[in-house]
Amino acid sequence: MKKIESIKNPLVKEWKKLQTRKERERTQSFLIEGFHLVEEALGYPDRVTQIIISENAEMPSRWELNDITIIVVTDEIMKEICDTETTQGIAAVCKKVDSHDLNMDKPSPRFLLIDAVQDPGNLGTIIRTAEAAGIDAIFIGEGTVDIYNSKVVRSTQGAIFHLPIIKGNLHEWIRRLKERNIPVYGTALQNAVPYQEVSSKGSFALIVGNEGNGVAKDLLVETTQNLYIPIYGKSESLNVAIAAAILVYHLR
Amino acid sequence: MKKIESIKNPLVKEWKKLQTRKERERTQSFLIEGFHLVEEALGYPDRVTQIIISENAEMPSRWELNDITIIVVTDEIMKEICDTETTQGIAAVCKKVDSHDLNMDKPSPRFLLIDAVQDPGNLGTIIRTAEAAGIDAIFIGEGTVDIYNSKVVRSTQGAIFHLPIIKGNLHEWIRRLKERNIPVYGTALQNAVPYQEVSSKGSFALIVGNEGNGVAKDLLVETTQNLYIPIYGKSESLNVAIAAAILVYHLR
Repeated sequence: MKKIESIKNPLVKEWKKLQTRKERERTQSFLIEGFHLVEEALGYPDRVTQIIISENAEMPSRWELNDITIIVVTDEIMKEICDTETTQGIAAVCKKVDSHDLNMDKPSPRFLLIDAVQDPGNLGTIIRTAEAAGIDAIFIGEGTVDIYNSKVVRSTQGAIFHLPIIKGNLHEWIRRLKERNIPVYGTALQNAVPYQEVSSKGSFALIVGNEGNGVAKDLLVETTQNLYIPIYGKSESLNVAIAAAILVYHLR
Repeated sequence: MKKIESIKNPLVKEWKKLQTRKERERTQSFLIEGFHLVEEALGYPDRVTQIIISENAEMPSRWELNDITIIVVTDEIMKEICDTETTQGIAAVCKKVDSHDLNMDKPSPRFLLIDAVQDPGNLGTIIRTAEAAGIDAIFIGEGTVDIYNSKVVRSTQGAIFHLPIIKGNLHEWIRRLKERNIPVYGTALQNAVPYQEVSSKGSFALIVGNEGNGVAKDLLVETTQNLYIPIYGKSESLNVAIAAAILVYHLR
């Protein structure tokens, strides 16, 4: 087990740089923090490349570590590399997985398409909720916050490891889904029906959009049907993660 | 119009102290930040007692200010009194309203009971969603974060002004609701049925609970029925605001 005590060690600099999207893309890896997330990641072979543990923290004995490199650091270093204000004394470097097993031919597949969601907490919560609701894969369009942003990963509570999340062109995905006769529902305030009017037929794809502007107009014209959630009070809108939750649970 | 330029002015100290629960309780008032929230508050007579505006911000001409005191401050002072990192240059001091018009005799009333929710963002989002879903009043039990905490207020997006939110003993409220034949649904993982099995009969009360521990056991034994939201993926749970949203929209 390697131990690092100097904050000037090059590894510390490398870990800290993983807080930037650029570095995460360059290295195809990202940093996760906390016992729960590291445990979730360990559930997948070859996903975790390094575990970083504070000299004052203890590794749960149930963890199967095989050949993973473990590096012990000071509390000061842990604080330096973590994004959270109070660290749990554990972090890990994970590999991004770009080629997920995406099985579009399973019976009644369910998909979520995300267009330009900006807030990391919203994106993470949407991923967590979609996974819980049994969504089979998530497609992320351009303009959405990086899914490997540490706040996104934290908000997913580990769900990020449990289902394929694929970046790409949403127009292209809508086309492919419709070719397979999977109904694609947009969310919109105009030219839309109350979501309660649509009943689940097993398979579906749902598109949710940007916090301020909603789903892009050029996507909404390509859907099978657009839905809205009625507002019965004086509020003007619902949070996007809340809307996504109501719709994915209703549609399934 | 009064102008304050010194950060040492006693008023600045008073406003800043409103960031603490103790001071909000002592003065029965709270501070709100941003154009949207101030506009929502101005919709209610006598609610806003002071408007604080930065010398570099502009008051929308549509606002009806009547006799409200307006105080112009420097950007430095605005930054000092606000909780947000980037201020919009506007804030207001509002009176708490404790005696809301609670009409329990309206047809099909719908209520939400909140037990010990800790995270301000969660509580604010729950209030926003409940108001949008047409909930008539929210009852807040002990151990829940202060609804006048600035992050709670921001997350409500103004919904805090639109419906009665009443602090009190939840056992007492459950008793009163059941006396009126209003079904009271708890949320629980054990001794509970999937929420889809319960169909709406108009009136209902729903209890949601603490992020870690859920609804207290001594409340769950007093409900009409306890519900759970099935998890179809590998996630262990849903965020409490997400769960509340799925349930209030399903039950209405």
